[in-house]
Amino acid sequence: MVRKRTGNNQFLKKFNQAVILDLIRREKGISKAELAEITGLSPTAVGVITASLLEEGYIHETGTGESKGGRRPVLLELKPRSFYAIGVDMDVAYMNMMLIDITGEVICERTMHLSESTAFEKAVGRLEDAILDMLDEKVIDLGRLLGIGISVPGLVNSETGEVVLAPNLQWENIDVKSHLIRLKHVPVYVENEAMASAICENWIGLCQDVGNFVCINIKSGIGAGIFTNGKLYRGAGGSAGEVGHIVVDENGPKCGCGNYGCLETLASTTRIADKAKRLVRQGIVSSLNEIKDVDAITIDRIVEVARGGDEAAKNILMESARYIGIAISSIINTLNPSKIVLGKEFIKYADLVMEHIKGVAACKSLAFPTANVEITASNIGEKASALGAAIIPLKVLFGK
Amino acid sequence: MVRKRTGNNQFLKKFNQAVILDLIRREKGISKAELAEITGLSPTAVGVITASLLEEGYIHETGTGESKGGRRPVLLELKPRSFYAIGVDMDVAYMNMMLIDITGEVICERTMHLSESTAFEKAVGRLEDAILDMLDEKVIDLGRLLGIGISVPGLVNSETGEVVLAPNLQWENIDVKSHLIRLKHVPVYVENEAMASAICENWIGLCQDVGNFVCINIKSGIGAGIFTNGKLYRGAGGSAGEVGHIVVDENGPKCGCGNYGCLETLASTTRIADKAKRLVRQGIVSSLNEIKDVDAITIDRIVEVARGGDEAAKNILMESARYIGIAISSIINTLNPSKIVLGKEFIKYADLVMEHIKGVAACKSLAFPTANVEITASNIGEKASALGAAIIPLKVLFGK
Repeated sequence: MVRKRTGNNQFLKKFNQAVILDLIRREKGISKAELAEITGLSPTAVGVITASLLEEGYIHETGTGESKGGRRPVLLELKPRSFYAIGVDMDVAYMNMMLIDITGEVICERTMHLSESTAFEKAVGRLEDAILDMLDEKVIDLGRLLGIGISVPGLVNSETGEVVLAPNLQWENIDVKSHLIRLKHVPVYVENEAMASAICENWIGLCQDVGNFVCINIKSGIGAGIFTNGKLYRGAGGSAGEVGHIVVDENGPKCGCGNYGCLETLASTTRIADKAKRLVRQGIVSSLNEIKDVDAITIDRIVEVARGGDEAAKNILMESARYIGIAISSIINTLNPSKIVLGKEFIKYADLVMEHIKGVAACKSLAFPTANVEITASNIGEKASALGAAIIPLKVLFGK
Repeated sequence: MVRKRTGNNQFLKKFNQAVILDLIRREKGISKAELAEITGLSPTAVGVITASLLEEGYIHETGTGESKGGRRPVLLELKPRSFYAIGVDMDVAYMNMMLIDITGEVICERTMHLSESTAFEKAVGRLEDAILDMLDEKVIDLGRLLGIGISVPGLVNSETGEVVLAPNLQWENIDVKSHLIRLKHVPVYVENEAMASAICENWIGLCQDVGNFVCINIKSGIGAGIFTNGKLYRGAGGSAGEVGHIVVDENGPKCGCGNYGCLETLASTTRIADKAKRLVRQGIVSSLNEIKDVDAITIDRIVEVARGGDEAAKNILMESARYIGIAISSIINTLNPSKIVLGKEFIKYADLVMEHIKGVAACKSLAFPTANVEITASNIGEKASALGAAIIPLKVLFGK
């Protein structure tokens, strides 16, 4: 390990500890002898590290493994409910909070509704209250909290922990950490919402052990989290994955970004609902007509009547799916990923449109990468960003 | 360094040697004391490694650095013309070969023209003859050849060294190495043509020290080589970067891939020439009309008359540029690269269309990544793939 000499030993110690801890996590029951065998560290070094991990309470001894001749070896496992992490999905209309433990198990979850006018300071104040309250309720000491991950729909600087720009939240150059005064000794991480989902899929979802994949979140906006060569890919300035702004119809509607025909204008759930409203106003033949307050038409309602066999509602969803397929074809040609996972509100109607998306994408991308990609709906869905944010402090602990 | 114990020492030794050698390359004159300082290796370890590098002839002592009190230290540098590498750009109509030395300097270059009907065995036979002849001429012993890199317009398996599919060459599942019988002790690497260009830009071109960039090659086909997080990105199956098949006009012409309106059908140099031929046949007002044999119209001729002020020729180029701009906007939104380098035949007319490409791309992508990307023409151009292929054996030597 060639590195600058300063702090080298300290670095190596932490590095080796994280490697051991991560092996214990992945193997779910492993002996010290096996740890030495896999890592190439000496049995003594493994003994020192595991003793320290036991003492600090990250792991515990659990059962015994198979004997290879002598005594049956003691197995080491992560100790459930020893350490915790909190993830927050911060959106315009809600804040979703997840408390998980070191093993990734969800301990509790809370959602708070916000109004669009909720100012930043007030939102963060309520977040802090809720976190402290949740820890209190579960009798968890602050010292047992590995960190807090906050997912925001916008551009973050993951190194400084600053939210650079989250237009929908009206946040700009905000250092969230500095406002969480009562949590000042707890590490705080901020992450883009789609990237947080990708982290979640990679850690506990459909993309474990997948090196090259794209998670596309479809809700009021559309964005993607991308992994390349086994690592989250942020791009040069942290804005990689803005696939909602791929132009899929040059003559399409105007987008909030100023451009025309971005994917978002044709396939976000808000725009899908807008389209349904417009068609109802134009007198479309559909059971959506039965809704008295046209403005109350939502994606949920559209999906509901589509499931009931309403052709107009189905067509609206299929039309949005076609545009998703076009954008995906561009992603397949450019990135040749092995998986594309569609998540968030999309999972409400994934079964209705998935075949169409696959068909359009296959038509419009090269045969080789198309034959080698799996396009699928997330099975975590709307909670992926909150969970992904909670996983960030775990990733730091496990040196990932 | 945690690794399986078997072969660990051997691995570490090679790793440390590559790190030292790479520092000597990058610093262009560095003392042993500085090497120890930067790497954190002991002066003794650095001494052993550099002595072995000196003995094997990779480096030499050259001049003295500034004194920090005592004797002025001897500086180490790569030894020019000590070791060599060959790169080959294999195309339908030609084979371009580059012989470079360990420092990256081009020693000599050869181009052989091929006819489309040249069978694989014959092409490889001529390649082998030419390589041996070139080494003979320069009096270079085979033992001084670090390796041969071969760039092909197609899908390669960089691990097995096999060309999986190169449709234009009509190569399928070909192990080139096994056919280079007289070079059997020389390592042979195969690489996709656009990825080879990206390697070249990263090693000696416009993308040195750039972690996230895209090189787009525009000639008879269009393809890209992508670097993410400082590494070449191949995708799940090695086909990443097929941006020539991004659909930029749903109602566009049919592409060789079976789809319609791929970028390639509207902006490859072959298709640009085809368009000019069609317009001439339709009686367009242009000095291209003066060419008696319409089929002889080439991209070079179009560029020539465009430079002479011919509006029709300029429009044909500008139209192709517009489509390049559209595809680039999709790349900017998805990948947020800090550089996009356009190369190969494109450099013949880059100055005529670059502003238009930038304008279209800026119109159709998000403000933030657009403001942070530099779109530029390669200054290596048509030789980038051959050079990039030659650099592969150097990268292996330097542990990159």
